[in-house]
Amino acid sequence: MLKTIGIMGGMGPASTVDLMNRIISMTEADSDQEHIPMIVDNNTRIPDRTEAILFGGKNPAPEMALSAAKLEAAGADFIVIACNAAHYFIPQIKDKISIPILDMTEETAKLLIIKGVKRAAVLATDGTIQSGFFEHALERVGIQTVYPNEEQQKLVMSLVYNYIKKGVTDVNDLPKEEMTNLVGDLSNQGAEVLILASTELPIAFSIMGLRSDAFVDPTNILAKSAIRMAGAKIRKSHDN
Amino acid sequence: MLKTIGIMGGMGPASTVDLMNRIISMTEADSDQEHIPMIVDNNTRIPDRTEAILFGGKNPAPEMALSAAKLEAAGADFIVIACNAAHYFIPQIKDKISIPILDMTEETAKLLIIKGVKRAAVLATDGTIQSGFFEHALERVGIQTVYPNEEQQKLVMSLVYNYIKKGVTDVNDLPKEEMTNLVGDLSNQGAEVLILASTELPIAFSIMGLRSDAFVDPTNILAKSAIRMAGAKIRKSHDN
Repeated sequence: MLKTIGIMGGMGPASTVDLMNRIISMTEADSDQEHIPMIVDNNTRIPDRTEAILFGGKNPAPEMALSAAKLEAAGADFIVIACNAAHYFIPQIKDKISIPILDMTEETAKLLIIKGVKRAAVLATDGTIQSGFFEHALERVGIQTVYPNEEQQKLVMSLVYNYIKKGVTDVNDLPKEEMTNLVGDLSNQGAEVLILASTELPIAFSIMGLRSDAFVDPTNILAKSAIRMAGAKIRKSHDN
Repeated sequence: MLKTIGIMGGMGPASTVDLMNRIISMTEADSDQEHIPMIVDNNTRIPDRTEAILFGGKNPAPEMALSAAKLEAAGADFIVIACNAAHYFIPQIKDKISIPILDMTEETAKLLIIKGVKRAAVLATDGTIQSGFFEHALERVGIQTVYPNEEQQKLVMSLVYNYIKKGVTDVNDLPKEEMTNLVGDLSNQGAEVLILASTELPIAFSIMGLRSDAFVDPTNILAKSAIRMAGAKIRKSHDN
């Protein structure tokens, strides 16, 4: 019997649906009943993670712990979190539940090691970058981290908060040229891969039609790890 | 404070995500926290609804009742069901919970009455059609129902079960020409609107690029009713 995936979501809602979509579309299944059961808490009451990390905003950990407990009570066998920055708060919540949390940053680091990557650029919100938890996960396996410069970082924040989180889906509204330049700059700094470490970024890149084998999408890695942990198979077309 | 929407899903998983997407994209919200909280049970253990209605397959009502109770326990204020055929079983589950179920068929019938519709074509799975519950919801408000002929109905079933439920997303794999002819035939029989009364059909029509003001999408109607019932506003661009 397949295990039930608990998804802690609402950070934001679009990213929650995006993670679900990846799990569903990458699962080898020919009927509803062969798909993996999921309990999803689209908990939009969780305070902003970046605000909390950078500006002393309300700590999201207590509301995240409520979500985790709710998912466990509803039958989840393990939890995945559909938000990079929220991973910073895992140490504050993991003791409140008795089921494991599958960590997106650790799953990403594991995969990059297998690929022999030595230097990775990280695109993320200010909170993720300044708290350093993604960098630390990479550091623990010996991978160096490169970041955008200050001005470029403002563009990344704007893309996440002023566009995707507000529901913009039209490519003409997005800063495609500036993002293309940013990607080139990071590659020139020796980054072998570009980690899109905010769940809004793969959505934005997809809308803008930016594609490269060098882009690493932690949400995709997390989705595949979750499918395997639930006991299902990954569709052949996605099996790499 | 916004109410929490409980989504009974997994019937199938793609339709569950589709309903969530519609609720999220049609909600007037500028930050994660302004979006509506949702608890989602993507319960893929619910037996096939069509099998149960037509061929004496396992009754999905007990597993649906478990889902409903789980959603209520997790804090849902009301429930929506992301599957047309599953609506047939509402009478068997509504007494098991103390929160209301927002009925997609009733919401659709209400809207068509406002639009002055007298005759509607219904595209649905065999289970929905033969159990007649959608037809009855229309009948109660005085709207006549028209259906595809036997051969066309097989095409509709194939579109739902052999294509969308199996995860086909490439337009070239879908029977676009045959579906276009089917739509024309129903219009010739006097149908003023075409109700896409299986949650997979709007997905299929969207992939095939079939669009018309005469297409009525009950999932969209349900999404809007749920947004209003949760106490949020509908984005201006969708407000009709």
